[in-house]
Amino acid sequence: MTKRDEQIVERIHQNTLRILEEVGMAFLSEEALEILRKGGIRVEENRAYFTEEQVMHALDTAVKDFTVYARNSTYNVKMNTEDLYITPGYGSPSICEADGKVRTATFDDFLKLAMIVQSSDAFSINGGILAQPSDIDADISVEAMVYTTLCRSDKALFSVCGGGEQAEHIMEMLRIVFGGDIEKIPCCFNLISTLSPLGITKGTLDTINVCAKNGQPLVIAPGPMAGGTGPISLAGNTSLANAEILATNVYAQLVHPGTPIVYGFAATVSDMKNMNVSNACPGFLKEARYGALLSKKYGLACRSGGGMSNANGLTAQAGVESAMSLFESFSEKANLVMHATGSLHSFNTVSYEKFIMDIETIDRMRYYFSDLPDDDDALAFDAIQEVAEEGSNFITVEHTFERCRMDPWFSTVSVHDNGRGNPNEELYASAQKRIEKVLEEYEYPTLSQEKRDALDAIMRKLGMKEKDIAKV
Amino acid sequence: MTKRDEQIVERIHQNTLRILEEVGMAFLSEEALEILRKGGIRVEENRAYFTEEQVMHALDTAVKDFTVYARNSTYNVKMNTEDLYITPGYGSPSICEADGKVRTATFDDFLKLAMIVQSSDAFSINGGILAQPSDIDADISVEAMVYTTLCRSDKALFSVCGGGEQAEHIMEMLRIVFGGDIEKIPCCFNLISTLSPLGITKGTLDTINVCAKNGQPLVIAPGPMAGGTGPISLAGNTSLANAEILATNVYAQLVHPGTPIVYGFAATVSDMKNMNVSNACPGFLKEARYGALLSKKYGLACRSGGGMSNANGLTAQAGVESAMSLFESFSEKANLVMHATGSLHSFNTVSYEKFIMDIETIDRMRYYFSDLPDDDDALAFDAIQEVAEEGSNFITVEHTFERCRMDPWFSTVSVHDNGRGNPNEELYASAQKRIEKVLEEYEYPTLSQEKRDALDAIMRKLGMKEKDIAKV
Repeated sequence: MTKRDEQIVERIHQNTLRILEEVGMAFLSEEALEILRKGGIRVEENRAYFTEEQVMHALDTAVKDFTVYARNSTYNVKMNTEDLYITPGYGSPSICEADGKVRTATFDDFLKLAMIVQSSDAFSINGGILAQPSDIDADISVEAMVYTTLCRSDKALFSVCGGGEQAEHIMEMLRIVFGGDIEKIPCCFNLISTLSPLGITKGTLDTINVCAKNGQPLVIAPGPMAGGTGPISLAGNTSLANAEILATNVYAQLVHPGTPIVYGFAATVSDMKNMNVSNACPGFLKEARYGALLSKKYGLACRSGGGMSNANGLTAQAGVESAMSLFESFSEKANLVMHATGSLHSFNTVSYEKFIMDIETIDRMRYYFSDLPDDDDALAFDAIQEVAEEGSNFITVEHTFERCRMDPWFSTVSVHDNGRGNPNEELYASAQKRIEKVLEEYEYPTLSQEKRDALDAIMRKLGMKEKDIAKV
Repeated sequence: MTKRDEQIVERIHQNTLRILEEVGMAFLSEEALEILRKGGIRVEENRAYFTEEQVMHALDTAVKDFTVYARNSTYNVKMNTEDLYITPGYGSPSICEADGKVRTATFDDFLKLAMIVQSSDAFSINGGILAQPSDIDADISVEAMVYTTLCRSDKALFSVCGGGEQAEHIMEMLRIVFGGDIEKIPCCFNLISTLSPLGITKGTLDTINVCAKNGQPLVIAPGPMAGGTGPISLAGNTSLANAEILATNVYAQLVHPGTPIVYGFAATVSDMKNMNVSNACPGFLKEARYGALLSKKYGLACRSGGGMSNANGLTAQAGVESAMSLFESFSEKANLVMHATGSLHSFNTVSYEKFIMDIETIDRMRYYFSDLPDDDDALAFDAIQEVAEEGSNFITVEHTFERCRMDPWFSTVSVHDNGRGNPNEELYASAQKRIEKVLEEYEYPTLSQEKRDALDAIMRKLGMKEKDIAKV
């Protein structure tokens, strides 16, 4: 971090403290206000006001280093390390087809996406709202998505937050899958969204209550839009998001001291022409970068960046936007990267073709950011001497044969020859071929019949249709 | 630079010195070998061997901080600073049309590209082989390109290197345009390409002789392909490119002590499937990064990255590859970024649509990498208080109105609304509209009739057709 960046981060931190002390945050639940009052927080009407000491004490109380356990321990996720974990696109109601046509997402899409994530080495985490299934009853879709992810994947679980009741159902499922006592075992991520500016709804507060009491981590993720639900200036919007995180954390620590926290910062920018969210412009990336720097100041695991795009199809624009967004995630050493794959139309659609291309882009990033081998064989003095003295070339020397599967980076989706057709169609065809291969490699993860029956029973009780249960 | 990177850079440096001392470099010109011998360099047959002392002395002798003067001083280019200067795609023989069809480039393309570069704020430098014009006689095309750039643009000149004779003609043109005495005025960039591995041709050595004697800067740019013309391992290939730069610099400083030098490192990677150059894979970017770190170790201005793509059209892959490549240029603080706009098919084609999209991507990067304002107005405490206390929103507050032309980033090419057509066609149409606007804004730069006549006379003498001269 440069001196100038340190200074900016400190200015934002001080501005945040002033916001929390003088403007406060609205907690839209009587129960929550009571918890705050009892915790010594000044409450006036529905607004809570926090002192620096209260904010910093809650940061000290939060558990910052923790593992989110997966059913398959290969996929255990370590928060607040140098490791970078990616999660797929989250929350889109629609699918963007290869020709740019947009259609409503279905439960079959959710299933297919969960299978791709399970099969891909790129992911240790599965779930969240992979796509919002329109053909599942709205009042059970939260549980249906978590249930499907648990059955179809043994990777670490990204849960879905709907409210207190839904959270209780999900905890019940987790107890079945992980054994009764989950309080000491973080086993799902919970995305806590605020109501910017400076508010949080009853549903979200109830979700926090259930998750925190069950020892489950919260990814506190305010997403004010600069110029819409937050100030148009990036430093102001970043301060606002930061204030919402810190205030929410105070509440979570009052509910259950030691609740594991991820700094889930998700401030975006408004497109001032149409007031849509712009999650892929450079202003968004700048906010993400300062969010990452703030999280490190507080010692919290950092969610940053993604594979964002405002494009309306898998175009060169989508490529530029996602690559820039992912580059920010990698260069700022994000610990958790949400929306990393498949996202188009400013969060509104998921594209399968983009999903698989983004996985390749992440692979490019991992190669670029990995250590450069500099042992004697890699320095290749002998090979250079041999070629220079014999007037031969590197294509045929032993050194090249020995290392040709180790050194170059190979694409799995990108096209690198001069085809004769439409370049976009060739790329889409390559992506679709890759998706087929990944789906072919899908294997059902182990889950005992007893556990599966118990999960089915919950969903049956909630009213999930038999034909949908049979699909899972 | 991390400790580990410092260690890697030092290992590559030591490997380089060993290559120069034990393997040497072939100088394929008797005159050049004589200059080396006279300079105390050990020469055996056509190979020259360099001691550490000779290499480091030549680095000390090189001029490292210099300005390349443009006809219009607004565009003077300062080498070896924190500023980043971009140059357009260089050396493609073909044009890639929007539908992916490839056709041979013509002189009209060169003219059009020179005009776009002149009109775009993104560039302070114009020229180089914007596209190789197939309809200009090969034996005068080098001079024709420089002549055209000088007439059509008053930005700093990227020259074209063809050999000693061509270089003399270009110096003659520069004396006309900049006044007689150019020896003390760097006024063009000269790209010096080696013959990897570890060789340099007579034509290139003759070019160095002419440029160096006339005080003109050299961008020493070896481009060994890992696995083809260089070792497959990145540390080995980087060492090889570094050795070629340092050896060429020794020669240049012997020709004319104090020749201005740019570390023009251009090591690439072979696609091992078809032995094409791969200039956009993450291996290329890793080499570029270590090249940038080496240039800084030597205190030289740094050429790094670009807007590279191996894609066969303006696809999402092209977007990912160029954005990653440009991100590397910006994050490693490249001073000179070549091939920054329009390049497709691994250098082989230029796409107008990509050209204009890359300009926008560079604009995204400049915004992302610029300083974040954190003054009181940017921190927006008052606006936040106002909205929270009045229960209003940020769309309508004064703060948003006042800053809405300052804070958000606006796209000029990217599409950010849900059209109904094919997304790629919509993006291409947007790019073409933007190209038209940029071309409409083109203005002929001032050049006295006397100078113009003198330049025309040179080209007429060289045999350029009247109809082509009339186009310029």
